Amino acid sequence: MTALDPTTEAAEAPGTAEHHHGYISDKTRYLARLKRIEGQARGLHRMVDEEKYCIDILTQISALKSALDGVAMGLLEDHLQHCVLDAARTDGEAAEAKLKEASAAIARLVRS
Amino acid sequence: MTALDPTTEAAEAPGTAEHHHGYISDKTRYLARLKRIEGQARGLHRMVDEEKYCIDILTQISALKSALDGVAMGLLEDHLQHCVLDAARTDGEAAEAKLKEASAAIARLVRS
Amino acid sequence: MTALDPTTEAAEAPGTAEHHHGYISDKTRYLARLKRIEGQARGLHRMVDEEKYCIDILTQISALKSALDGVAMGLLEDHLQHCVLDAARTDGEAAEAKLKEASAAIARLVRS
Amino acid sequence: MTALDPTTEAAEAPGTAEHHHGYISDKTRYLARLKRIEGQARGLHRMVDEEKYCIDILTQISALKSALDGVAMGLLEDHLQHCVLDAARTDGEAAEAKLKEASAAIARLVRS
Repeated sequence: MTALDPTTEAAEAPGTAEHHHGYISDKTRYLARLKRIEGQARGLHRMVDEEKYCIDILTQISALKSALDGVAMGLLEDHLQHCVLDAARTDGEAAEAKLKEASAAIARLVRS
Repeated sequence: MTALDPTTEAAEAPGTAEHHHGYISDKTRYLARLKRIEGQARGLHRMVDEEKYCIDILTQISALKSALDGVAMGLLEDHLQHCVLDAARTDGEAAEAKLKEASAAIARLVRS
Repeated sequence: MTALDPTTEAAEAPGTAEHHHGYISDKTRYLARLKRIEGQARGLHRMVDEEKYCIDILTQISALKSALDGVAMGLLEDHLQHCVLDAARTDGEAAEAKLKEASAAIARLVRS
Repeated sequence: MTALDPTTEAAEAPGTAEHHHGYISDKTRYLARLKRIEGQARGLHRMVDEEKYCIDILTQISALKSALDGVAMGLLEDHLQHCVLDAARTDGEAAEAKLKEASAAIARLVRS
């Protein structure tokens, strides 16, 4: 699994940094949060398997959804701050297209 | 992991069936859905690790939230159909308490 | 407008009480909350008309959605406590049908 | 009510157009949508007053929340396309501040 391979990041030439998507600086933190989220999902499976009380499972599902929202909001802000603002500085049409795309993603999040 | 242990369920005395929480009949299906959800969570981790495009990650997060809502709605309906209706038939006060508890869980879901 | 007509309720024969939907006891409070919600909706219209700052309008929309969730949760709990539990005591099949219906309404709320 | 006063807009000096918030071009359409939303809110009040079936009221609340999300998404996209992109072209720091502000508004919407 890539998470076990610390050479992945080091192997990238420094010059490619500009091509990275915006969240690179916080990558380690995002990966840790997503590891926890994966653990929460595994915990849900175990709760059903052990036939825990239904309401307690629902509470964990709400917590997991909130954790996902937290990650989504972080990624979205990073994306807007980097990818969209960069585009705005250099190419107005590309920036508008990127904002349309981001708005659609936001609408999906609001409804999910 | 319990999922690898098919004896767990068999080991329970048949007489304990009444103590099971309501979702027991669909347990296998819930476990399969939660396995998929766990896989989706792992997929999110991999997408960030591989620095996939942010918008694609957000789309996956929305899909994961919807999958969780689906499980939550199923568990909730099972809980209301079994646990709450059973209580209503035998003990009005217990049923009211269970509904208060379920309502609080619903409110958390609506807000998460 | 019916709200100006205090005779409406009095005109109902006492014996029809059983036909009332569950929220009757809190009706005055619900009506007051919905009046406020209507005022919030009117306020949104005015904010756009006066071209207020977009972010402030979004904040008001979030507040309005939360107020609606509050009313919905109250109505839902009342409905489950009265209508569904009543059915459970007298007619198991009717209770199951009512729970299916309530579950569908909850799913719509969770996704809206 | 301002909506009945067509002079409001005319009274603004043409030169101030650039200061308008981004949704100005669609203002008439937003106002019409918000009038409908206000009517939906009034309809909710009437439904409770007339003691309509609880589930039908919940369905209307879900519809109203979806209508509000629709307006919010439109306003948000307009805001990002105009206000934020304009800032990005002229003042990077202002653009970043505006994006932080917009991200907070999005998070409130996702959670409401």
